[in-house]
Amino acid sequence: MRKVKIYITLKEGVLDPQGKAVQNSLHSLEYNNVADVRIGKYMEVMLEDSDNIEQQVDKMCDQLLANPVIEDYSYTIEEAV
Amino acid sequence: MRKVKIYITLKEGVLDPQGKAVQNSLHSLEYNNVADVRIGKYMEVMLEDSDNIEQQVDKMCDQLLANPVIEDYSYTIEEAV
Repeated sequence: MRKVKIYITLKEGVLDPQGKAVQNSLHSLEYNNVADVRIGKYMEVMLEDSDNIEQQVDKMCDQLLANPVIEDYSYTIEEAV
Repeated sequence: MRKVKIYITLKEGVLDPQGKAVQNSLHSLEYNNVADVRIGKYMEVMLEDSDNIEQQVDKMCDQLLANPVIEDYSYTIEEAV
């Protein structure tokens, strides 16, 4: 079994209203040294072993998990504990 | 300037309907070796340098970014490029 950790982030230049809202909230809590906040998704996918796992993860991200127009993705593959 | 990468995940045992929905979608796309999917949040926070950054990040997570009842958080602090 493998544990795939997938990080999905908005592409550079894409507006992040959610991040802005969190940033404003942090400022209102006096965390004034917060310069920027970007919010994305973090997924842990448990996969039974197969020989083309990287290919499969790329396809899953392209097809479903990430929106290729506005999002980038990266991932790590670990042995599941 | 520092870049703080924050990973917020549901605690063990907390139901993840969103993860289940993604898992079902992956199965319907013939990715049958997907055993489990857990979905969380990934945040990148840019912070101007201050001496107690770790303390500050813990407080921001406890106060706003993570729900301590159902979520865990972890983070890394890097020099912003």
